[in-house]
Amino acid sequence: MQIKISEIASRLEAEIVNPPSDEAFIVGVASLAEATSEDLSFFHHEKYLNDLRSTKAGAVLVPSGFNEKIEDVPLLKVKSPSLAFNEIANELYSTDQTQENTGIHETAVIGEGVKLNPESVSIGAYAVIGSDTEIGEGVTISAGVSIGRQVKIGSNSLVYPNVVIYDKSILGKDVIVHGGTVIGSDGFGYEFDGSKHQKIIHFGYVKIEDDVEIGANCTIDRGRFGKTQIGQGTKIDNLCQVGHNVVIGQHCIIVADTAIGGSSDIGDFVTMAAQVGVAGHLEIGPYSVLVARTGVTKSLPGGEPNKPAFYSGFPVGPHEEKRKEMVYPRKIPKILSRLKALEKGISESEE
Amino acid sequence: MQIKISEIASRLEAEIVNPPSDEAFIVGVASLAEATSEDLSFFHHEKYLNDLRSTKAGAVLVPSGFNEKIEDVPLLKVKSPSLAFNEIANELYSTDQTQENTGIHETAVIGEGVKLNPESVSIGAYAVIGSDTEIGEGVTISAGVSIGRQVKIGSNSLVYPNVVIYDKSILGKDVIVHGGTVIGSDGFGYEFDGSKHQKIIHFGYVKIEDDVEIGANCTIDRGRFGKTQIGQGTKIDNLCQVGHNVVIGQHCIIVADTAIGGSSDIGDFVTMAAQVGVAGHLEIGPYSVLVARTGVTKSLPGGEPNKPAFYSGFPVGPHEEKRKEMVYPRKIPKILSRLKALEKGISESEE
Amino acid sequence: MQIKISEIASRLEAEIVNPPSDEAFIVGVASLAEATSEDLSFFHHEKYLNDLRSTKAGAVLVPSGFNEKIEDVPLLKVKSPSLAFNEIANELYSTDQTQENTGIHETAVIGEGVKLNPESVSIGAYAVIGSDTEIGEGVTISAGVSIGRQVKIGSNSLVYPNVVIYDKSILGKDVIVHGGTVIGSDGFGYEFDGSKHQKIIHFGYVKIEDDVEIGANCTIDRGRFGKTQIGQGTKIDNLCQVGHNVVIGQHCIIVADTAIGGSSDIGDFVTMAAQVGVAGHLEIGPYSVLVARTGVTKSLPGGEPNKPAFYSGFPVGPHEEKRKEMVYPRKIPKILSRLKALEKGISESEE
Repeated sequence: MQIKISEIASRLEAEIVNPPSDEAFIVGVASLAEATSEDLSFFHHEKYLNDLRSTKAGAVLVPSGFNEKIEDVPLLKVKSPSLAFNEIANELYSTDQTQENTGIHETAVIGEGVKLNPESVSIGAYAVIGSDTEIGEGVTISAGVSIGRQVKIGSNSLVYPNVVIYDKSILGKDVIVHGGTVIGSDGFGYEFDGSKHQKIIHFGYVKIEDDVEIGANCTIDRGRFGKTQIGQGTKIDNLCQVGHNVVIGQHCIIVADTAIGGSSDIGDFVTMAAQVGVAGHLEIGPYSVLVARTGVTKSLPGGEPNKPAFYSGFPVGPHEEKRKEMVYPRKIPKILSRLKALEKGISESEE
Repeated sequence: MQIKISEIASRLEAEIVNPPSDEAFIVGVASLAEATSEDLSFFHHEKYLNDLRSTKAGAVLVPSGFNEKIEDVPLLKVKSPSLAFNEIANELYSTDQTQENTGIHETAVIGEGVKLNPESVSIGAYAVIGSDTEIGEGVTISAGVSIGRQVKIGSNSLVYPNVVIYDKSILGKDVIVHGGTVIGSDGFGYEFDGSKHQKIIHFGYVKIEDDVEIGANCTIDRGRFGKTQIGQGTKIDNLCQVGHNVVIGQHCIIVADTAIGGSSDIGDFVTMAAQVGVAGHLEIGPYSVLVARTGVTKSLPGGEPNKPAFYSGFPVGPHEEKRKEMVYPRKIPKILSRLKALEKGISESEE
Repeated sequence: MQIKISEIASRLEAEIVNPPSDEAFIVGVASLAEATSEDLSFFHHEKYLNDLRSTKAGAVLVPSGFNEKIEDVPLLKVKSPSLAFNEIANELYSTDQTQENTGIHETAVIGEGVKLNPESVSIGAYAVIGSDTEIGEGVTISAGVSIGRQVKIGSNSLVYPNVVIYDKSILGKDVIVHGGTVIGSDGFGYEFDGSKHQKIIHFGYVKIEDDVEIGANCTIDRGRFGKTQIGQGTKIDNLCQVGHNVVIGQHCIIVADTAIGGSSDIGDFVTMAAQVGVAGHLEIGPYSVLVARTGVTKSLPGGEPNKPAFYSGFPVGPHEEKRKEMVYPRKIPKILSRLKALEKGISESEE
């Protein structure tokens, strides 16, 4: 597959600097440093300026306001080089990304009462689907996936290999779940009866709304009763843990290795950087940004649409305060020498 | 399935306030806020008092000592509302929770010399069981589970889908292992020979005692030699790591994302809250409580049956001390201004 | 299998103290405390001296310079008791460790155009291999493993059960991947378009060089474009996360629960202890040692071959500085009392 550079420019409504020949085309995309004359690349940060000057790319997407003089290389000025690059890459590589549509592999085990359209779904080898489960149009269930009973999966969702989905879980449309993730396991709840920990029965479920993506080897526990919910458009990275009865809002970003304790309530548009921990039964307001490694042990009010509230530290606090606190201890050697000077001054003046 | 409220009361030996009609029954359980007139609910904390006043539940379990005046709602006074609720929920939902007893699915691959009773065990589709393994009475092995050779699994244990159990692992009775967990992988041990890291061979095994529950996507490494052991009644949450030759005592609670380094020895009744780390070769005494995120780099004496010892911080210390230390740095701005005042006072007095 | 102690001594070129009878042999290896007269054991640290004095082992490997007087127990003096022990253990237990060579199990699903030598590879039950994948000589793919399309796996590599390897991943020779690990999942990249997070397409791949070992339930994301790379001889423990386009050098040691953010570049011979976090787009120089729980938010220069650079803390700094900083806050109570004394002294002198 090849696309003419002039066609890319016209499709993106891009202004061209150093226009190439009308016939010039690209067949792939690559970074500035690695691109060949048949690759499209993009420039989005000053620190890559030297890479841009020396790139061999067939064309480079640059921001509209870019005015640096670059010799030879065809430049396409667009609003967001990264999004435009992504759009072209998507077109070039989309067939690569899709799973082989095997239809329903002959080895897939489909339980009684399962509803699905065999013309539109793709079910991989050795996938197992429990009874009374509903699979929407265009869904891909990859090899080795194990799906329980009475599960619902919305249209065009994509479940990668060896994912486990327990009974009664509900996934919306356009959901992506990466390999090895476990959805719907029992919450971690016990009550000590004086001699041993009695298991609290968990008969709730997990609800994942439309357009959610969940990374590899995550764990999302079912509710004790009622549901654990992940809101529309929220994206979760690898190795994250979501406890029972947690409710996560819409369009949140939750980076790797983050754990959210049972029954906590996370607002819309919350960002959690990597290795964050949130204790149970807390409320995190919308538009909160938790810096990496924040440890949240109290509820946080959050921010507003164009005014996110940054938090950090353990115990958590407003990021500005915590940044200062973090460097306070380094002042102590100086404090000690000033104290000593004062003490000496006084003792001398007393002599 | 329905249960009469009067029958629940008599079974729990509960005193009834606002008794309903003799025929009144419930069919489910729910939280105070979500319950309908056919649900049982429970009240266990003051903060839900408004929910209790406005609940539509058919009956509510309350603590024996509860004396608040509530109109209309039938109340059943019991010692532990939460445990009583759990007992009734268990009865109502137990059939939901069990895996389909498929007997031995025709696709399961059972190695030579495997011992099991085909009348009592349930082996899911595409499960693979290695040679000379022994599966106890009433055990459920779910779909896609991979079990090695010479493994032993005690009666009534439940292994969820896609779990991996390496050769020679031993699981006791009534053990539950959630989806994706890996038991018996090699410990992380190498010795640098001057040019590369030589792998230390791990020919030990994992022993998991009766009544242990392990969450989803955990990893429990085998011993270098001898065993890695998890004691009776201990419960481990999702995404936890247990290193080679670790010995965990009985009735411990280990919350999500916790990692325990090789050869450490954890006493009975130890609680580790989430995201705790324990270095290798340490001893944590019984009745220790490690607050969330504690980082343990030295051995800890632990507490006593009714006097647990709380630890926190990194590096770890007694929780009371660490709590104070944590706020010390905030005193520094004040210290600096007091220092300045003193210095100014002295320099003025010297003029 | 049994080995004569005299043969072990001659093979290891060991000096013997308290030589046993010529016919004496061992059949296994064990710790000093657990060894019987038919076990070989080893001594490598003073703290086990009492165990050595009372061991029942048939023979004990000790360091060349060991001169303590021990009665009765045959001692074999060698340069590295641990490596020598490992060598003998390897010989005794190697047959235990290998997976059953099933050849290609009849249930394995092998896609079109897959290249492999059916005489030399071992493919487990319910393994699935995508089209155009190449499997080298002597490779073991265990049960339930799911491998995508156009993957390459070098000779003698060992992939444990239920691992997931996405399309186009490249694994070198002698690679070991433990159960449940996911290789090649999409990187965590989105761009907010004003109303939702648009997925950044990831069409890169993962390259794992020769002699790498990766623990259980790890996640290694593919590059956005280009590759995520793990260098030759590097060893990664359980539950680690490697972000998209990360490049890890050769012979690194990365302990459990560590997460490395996208596009970071880790030099050769870097050690990361457990629960370390590295933010994205950083450079960690070779011969860096990151102490457990270090949180890296800036690039680090690293050390030299025989002079590793130790770092710790969050935010990270040189370990020596950070160790001091860590204890500074404990000085505050004393500072406060000295301040008070000074203030009192002055106010009294002013009276």
